[in-house]
Amino acid sequence: GLAKLLRKQFGKYNVILSDIRKPPAHVYQSGPFIFSDILDYKNLCEIVVNNRISWLIHYSALLSAVGEANVSLARDVNITGLHNVLDVATEHGLRLFIPSTIGAFGPMSPRNPNPDLCIQRPRTIYEVSKVHAELMGEYYHHRYGLDFRCLRYPGIISADSQPGGGTTAEYVILSHLYLSFQIVSVLFLVADSWPMVFDDSNARSDWGWKHNYGLPELIQTMLNFTGSNFRMLRAN
Amino acid sequence: GLAKLLRKQFGKYNVILSDIRKPPAHVYQSGPFIFSDILDYKNLCEIVVNNRISWLIHYSALLSAVGEANVSLARDVNITGLHNVLDVATEHGLRLFIPSTIGAFGPMSPRNPNPDLCIQRPRTIYEVSKVHAELMGEYYHHRYGLDFRCLRYPGIISADSQPGGGTTAEYVILSHLYLSFQIVSVLFLVADSWPMVFDDSNARSDWGWKHNYGLPELIQTMLNFTGSNFRMLRAN
Repeated sequence: GLAKLLRKQFGKYNVILSDIRKPPAHVYQSGPFIFSDILDYKNLCEIVVNNRISWLIHYSALLSAVGEANVSLARDVNITGLHNVLDVATEHGLRLFIPSTIGAFGPMSPRNPNPDLCIQRPRTIYEVSKVHAELMGEYYHHRYGLDFRCLRYPGIISADSQPGGGTTAEYVILSHLYLSFQIVSVLFLVADSWPMVFDDSNARSDWGWKHNYGLPELIQTMLNFTGSNFRMLRAN
Repeated sequence: GLAKLLRKQFGKYNVILSDIRKPPAHVYQSGPFIFSDILDYKNLCEIVVNNRISWLIHYSALLSAVGEANVSLARDVNITGLHNVLDVATEHGLRLFIPSTIGAFGPMSPRNPNPDLCIQRPRTIYEVSKVHAELMGEYYHHRYGLDFRCLRYPGIISADSQPGGGTTAEYVILSHLYLSFQIVSVLFLVADSWPMVFDDSNARSDWGWKHNYGLPELIQTMLNFTGSNFRMLRAN
């Protein structure tokens, strides 16, 4: 995952992971891990000051399926938590990264191609809160000069780590079942109102985005990671 | 204003006004008025239950200029207050009206004509919170069946009441100064990135919207109301 890559580049002790839950043993052993409650502003400030934090990567959120099952908690974590993070980053001059989602578009957005800027009328509390995160981040940038960055992730299919919940969880299960056919078909199974083709020309010109893996390399890499499970499933 | 029209139609005692501040004497005398704090959820429930409320018209907000001067309070009133109102309306089966604003579009939206559904990337906390209100209202409608209605108001120039603050306040002042030229020019003075022409075809077909006043009738009506102040200004 991201933490592993960051620690490789910046040093194990320069990247602190946090959660409100105890992680598995191998996470504790891999580097610094502390308690952090996104809804406790003082706790966030304390962590920033005590650890001389300069970058903040904010992943806390209840995703689509989990959020719909608990709208009130999703609103707290995804919106109040966002506000706390924006404030702590602004107050302490941190650089802030918050991911958004392709779900931030919604059924009325153009799907093929899908431009960066278009109609955004999504239909879940998770997606609505991500539109809010995009707008608030831009607002804090213009208003306070906050260095805010955001990327709209598609559903992430991970071979080496389990996702926290939501649609992404379905991907992992589905990817194990369908990988032999075509990875792309999984996307349509889960959310057929989502964008089909992204126009990534802004990302290519603004910050030099380019993909490292084509579809064949992607499938090969996934098979290398999940090989044993996958073969077992296909054997059935 | 709206309260006067509603009381005329539904009866003086069937429309309750509220605020966290004491209103002027003539407001007290015009019908029921009570304390209501949008940030106190229990207080909202109490009012709804004790008064058998069935419709809720939610105007509490810090507008553009005032909001920028106090972002934290604007976020509380405009976003947390919104969430409280959505919850109380859903919980008690109220019909809910919340105005939005033409400021909910932003500098990247098409201006001429301006469609209902398009890019919305506004740049003030007030406008960002109104995009959030639109999306949350739609979400609560789809998720819980809430009867949520929303209208995007332009800057409102009132002849018979003073606005609460924000850009609208500038309008009243400007309208007194510029009314002799052309009322439309005021809009460009205040916010020249705002939409120029609205495509109101959806409103006309969805709920029979039509205008009662053209520009000549509008100016005549305003002059009748503000005649004395206006003549005084022009005399200088």
